[in-house]
Amino acid sequence: MDIEQYMQNVGKHAREASRRIARADSNAKNNALRAIAAAIRRDTDDLLAANREDLAAARAAGLEPAMLDRLTLSAKGVAAMAEGVDQVAALADPVGEISDLKFRPSGIQVGRMRVPLGVIGIIYEARPNVTADAAALCLKSGNASILRGGSEAIRSNRAIAALVQEGLATAGLPANAVQVIETTDRAAVGHLITLREYVDVIVPRGGKGLIARLLAESRVPMIQHLDGNCHVYLDDDADPEKALQIVENSKTQRYGTCNTAESLLLARSVVAQVLPAIAAMLTQKGVEIRGCHETLALLPHARAATEEDYAAEFLAPIISVKVVSGLDEAIEHINHYGSHHTDAIVSENYTSVMRFLREVDSASVMVNASTRFADGFEYGLGAEIGISTDKIHARGPVGLEGLTSQKWIVLGNGEVRA
Amino acid sequence: MDIEQYMQNVGKHAREASRRIARADSNAKNNALRAIAAAIRRDTDDLLAANREDLAAARAAGLEPAMLDRLTLSAKGVAAMAEGVDQVAALADPVGEISDLKFRPSGIQVGRMRVPLGVIGIIYEARPNVTADAAALCLKSGNASILRGGSEAIRSNRAIAALVQEGLATAGLPANAVQVIETTDRAAVGHLITLREYVDVIVPRGGKGLIARLLAESRVPMIQHLDGNCHVYLDDDADPEKALQIVENSKTQRYGTCNTAESLLLARSVVAQVLPAIAAMLTQKGVEIRGCHETLALLPHARAATEEDYAAEFLAPIISVKVVSGLDEAIEHINHYGSHHTDAIVSENYTSVMRFLREVDSASVMVNASTRFADGFEYGLGAEIGISTDKIHARGPVGLEGLTSQKWIVLGNGEVRA
Repeated sequence: MDIEQYMQNVGKHAREASRRIARADSNAKNNALRAIAAAIRRDTDDLLAANREDLAAARAAGLEPAMLDRLTLSAKGVAAMAEGVDQVAALADPVGEISDLKFRPSGIQVGRMRVPLGVIGIIYEARPNVTADAAALCLKSGNASILRGGSEAIRSNRAIAALVQEGLATAGLPANAVQVIETTDRAAVGHLITLREYVDVIVPRGGKGLIARLLAESRVPMIQHLDGNCHVYLDDDADPEKALQIVENSKTQRYGTCNTAESLLLARSVVAQVLPAIAAMLTQKGVEIRGCHETLALLPHARAATEEDYAAEFLAPIISVKVVSGLDEAIEHINHYGSHHTDAIVSENYTSVMRFLREVDSASVMVNASTRFADGFEYGLGAEIGISTDKIHARGPVGLEGLTSQKWIVLGNGEVRA
Repeated sequence: MDIEQYMQNVGKHAREASRRIARADSNAKNNALRAIAAAIRRDTDDLLAANREDLAAARAAGLEPAMLDRLTLSAKGVAAMAEGVDQVAALADPVGEISDLKFRPSGIQVGRMRVPLGVIGIIYEARPNVTADAAALCLKSGNASILRGGSEAIRSNRAIAALVQEGLATAGLPANAVQVIETTDRAAVGHLITLREYVDVIVPRGGKGLIARLLAESRVPMIQHLDGNCHVYLDDDADPEKALQIVENSKTQRYGTCNTAESLLLARSVVAQVLPAIAAMLTQKGVEIRGCHETLALLPHARAATEEDYAAEFLAPIISVKVVSGLDEAIEHINHYGSHHTDAIVSENYTSVMRFLREVDSASVMVNASTRFADGFEYGLGAEIGISTDKIHARGPVGLEGLTSQKWIVLGNGEVRA
């Protein structure tokens, strides 16, 4: 197999299909989505069988338990996958939405129309559920997609792709609107991220290593998601009760998610009042505290934090703790050590809150709320293709809207420019 | 001079300044802009003297007349430059704008806040007025900028930069918020477009050759502007009077602008009725017609159009003309041969108009209006840093808003995720 030629063909077919899917009406797209969901439910047993083959091969290859876990599809997982596709069908169609139409002094009326981006390449790890999810979001937003999942999931992904293409055909839409890359050759990724002629944007969903590699090599714009080193800052005017609850939820609700807090900052004036209860809660939940020397003065059993700890995304029951002089130092610390993902302040002070909102340079900035809310569903996007830590195009949770752009429309009545 | 080290320093200083300029309040930014405008007016003679040195060197180097023309500053041009900077001061500040705040079922209120992109690199030809213009737009939108103009304008640009930095200092803002690259070495551009750590976006303003080179080499996102091959399509239901006026204005108001029409498409049913008057108008204005065989049947003296003509941005009194079967062929032709810049339909038919608006894949799509309206000022943006023919981030005329992004803000009252 000539990988370069194969990827060129995939790109060409995607571009052709993108023209047709871009102008498909909402009914056709929703019919396709419902047909895909129905086919997934109907063929649950076949999907589970394909997945068992992937799992057997992965176990034989000695894949780590965490990765085996992500690779595994259960009957419940397949049902959730179908349900997810149906949910995308129920969302409003972003394509064709017209906004901000305003008359200008020349007599023309100028506004914007939301349109698909074109062809979207999704690169992700061996998680078969992402295949259905990403296909559904791209389809609904009028984009053609090229899906490249981790090679360990190839049998599961092929099985899902067949059902997606069946659904597209049922609705009279081009099968190439969703293509799953058929080869597990890693060179395919290298070609995908340089197919500038055929691919409009790459959405990588995966670990930091994957993203860093893609960033270095990609010739196509990316909606990228690096790490989530999220902070909770307890301001001088923090409400102790809210502080405790927000730290607990931000850090301990789930340890492995990108919107989990990895660092706690406390204004010096509140440390004595709030840290003992927070430390007791964290210790009781088995969270290791790595603190600055002022933290250690209060919590002698805690470990000393290093520079690396303040920059780390632990994804584990570990939290770095630092006492700061106040808002200025907190903002500086977050903008320096953070990953521009999600950061929260706990404060009752209007001026502190407004400054934190404006000056913290992160995709999501929160007041008196858990960092765990940084999520497309919690924000009301209805779905999420990823969380962008970039500033260009889309920032933070990316839903259907982030997979579109806006063109200008001008409605005239024979006007010409003077 | 070690160019790489120099550019690293420029980038580092820009990043530092960007943090301060991002949180500068509107008054400080406007004070700086008004001080810059005043300094430009005050030092008009010095600017003209620096420009005369550039012109003398350029003439000695045998620069083409069109480029000499762009390089030339007149007293009137300097006054217009200062006026432009004052106009930017008068625009609303986009930074900090909060929109779409909505309560979610969890109790949190989620919305967006507009924030600067960070550091913007502007690469442009030897046009000194762009220096003041780009500096003003980046400053107002809270971004630090690195300006690299054509080397022939280096003396003029240095003189303008000194006044810009004086204005920044007057307002207590960091001088490094606007840096003009001091070297004419072309290697500086190569470094600028790969300074991913320090530069958030590159805005190239220049010819197709420049953009193509940057596209091939850039490691930083670009707001790019390729060519403008704009179309006017006269539909079956075109009003002949509007058709004539719109073709005249779109093609002949100015020949060298990117929103000038380069191609005329006519539905077969209207050719006999409208083409003779349009051809007479074009011929009378000295516009050369390059037509399809059906065009030539009516206009035997016209030249036959080649494939290249349909794809060309003439920037000259030349127009390609093609008779099409109707709307479908027109849309297909535009999406195939066009440059996704600006295209217009002339029609009284609702369904044709709606399909044209939806299906033509261009940054600006117009109904019964001249393509010449595709412009930041005509659209009400108040200013324009460029016109993007890309789809990611910004499309079409880019004003202050295109130099910003939106972060998410969450206002809570102690909410945690369930």
